[in-house]
Amino acid sequence: MTFTAVPLTLYPDMFPGPLGHSMAGRALESRTWNCAPVQIRDFATDKHRTVDDTPAGGGAGMVLKADVLGAAIDHAVAAHPGLPILAMTPRGAPITQARVRSLAEGPGAIILCGRFEGFDERIFDARPIEQVSMGDIILSGGEMGALLLLDACIRLLPGVMGASASGDDESFEQGLLEYPHYTRPVSWEGRDIPDVLRSGDHKKIAAWRREQAESDTKARRPDLWAAYSAGRSGGR
Amino acid sequence: MTFTAVPLTLYPDMFPGPLGHSMAGRALESRTWNCAPVQIRDFATDKHRTVDDTPAGGGAGMVLKADVLGAAIDHAVAAHPGLPILAMTPRGAPITQARVRSLAEGPGAIILCGRFEGFDERIFDARPIEQVSMGDIILSGGEMGALLLLDACIRLLPGVMGASASGDDESFEQGLLEYPHYTRPVSWEGRDIPDVLRSGDHKKIAAWRREQAESDTKARRPDLWAAYSAGRSGGR
Repeated sequence: MTFTAVPLTLYPDMFPGPLGHSMAGRALESRTWNCAPVQIRDFATDKHRTVDDTPAGGGAGMVLKADVLGAAIDHAVAAHPGLPILAMTPRGAPITQARVRSLAEGPGAIILCGRFEGFDERIFDARPIEQVSMGDIILSGGEMGALLLLDACIRLLPGVMGASASGDDESFEQGLLEYPHYTRPVSWEGRDIPDVLRSGDHKKIAAWRREQAESDTKARRPDLWAAYSAGRSGGR
Repeated sequence: MTFTAVPLTLYPDMFPGPLGHSMAGRALESRTWNCAPVQIRDFATDKHRTVDDTPAGGGAGMVLKADVLGAAIDHAVAAHPGLPILAMTPRGAPITQARVRSLAEGPGAIILCGRFEGFDERIFDARPIEQVSMGDIILSGGEMGALLLLDACIRLLPGVMGASASGDDESFEQGLLEYPHYTRPVSWEGRDIPDVLRSGDHKKIAAWRREQAESDTKARRPDLWAAYSAGRSGGR
């Protein structure tokens, strides 16, 4: 089954963009996924093709109109029935690797990308839209977040990472940061690869990596560590 | 002063990519920022131009070599002295809007983009590198995270957002999510813009927006709310 990405955007030319390179680009060529952006402006109803208007109650910036968004979403849903609808917004729930994994196991996603001050809030009452955010920073628009989300999904699609890499060892998959890596040269600028990694003792190596993952998580991400210690390991 | 972005990457063609469009694209044309990617592979020393090797201690994937990374970083630092060096890695500290703002006030950034299983850890002992992560998800490489980080910085550069928008009202700038927005039409699919926003009473409107920002933050982001209530408002 092909994973279908349907960004709803004022900048369809941004897609596939960086996802046309490297691993995601090869997966696009082999039709493991496909990219079908929808231009929101095509659903404007006036002759100026207006998509936004000033915020009710005043304030800076412009707000994407609910009627135009509604029409664009309805079109995308009709063209791609069964896809979940997401909106990229800093007001959303922070994206998690567990959600990425569940999206990657599904048929794809319609992803609403905001610009300006954001969306008319009524769209979220009127259509079943999951609001997600990509880290606690403000972007110029949702397109960049959508690219990031799609990249995270695409690498999990069957065949994309290759045989060996299920990704189970990665950061967040076990509720911990990943352990540190080393490779040749053994000595570099007076710094050596830790002895244990060259011992050939796989049990010792596994134990060392586990310790590193735990101590790094504790030091760098007390939030993850608290969740992990509370027994909520797995699938964060 | 021009903000200089120096991605260190195996895929320099990914830059400026989506940052060549819209607001960031116009700022690039007007030389508000410039983009000078460095190809890591140019610093390989063998005839096969090898940049990676198998992980010491075993395991799937490949690790970027410390010697090659070190040479690439040293080149970038010599060409662009004074820029902070960041690395995109899920093992890093989650990026914050406060850090984005401080980067945007500076001369730019050298951004190390990993691929495969990541970097030889010794690079972080040997060079002054700030490790940052973009949300708790795993990407195919650091390029996408670098694009996101740069987008967040570029919109804050002088003149990019235009006169009105300092961005102070945005989510995270005050330690709260932003309040919801509405615009015309007043009635859409039986849903009306809240009366208060059409009252013309600016004091009432400000109070309503504050209440919404607080209640939405409490409901959607208990983590932000806890930090905010603890008096750590501003600059998260």
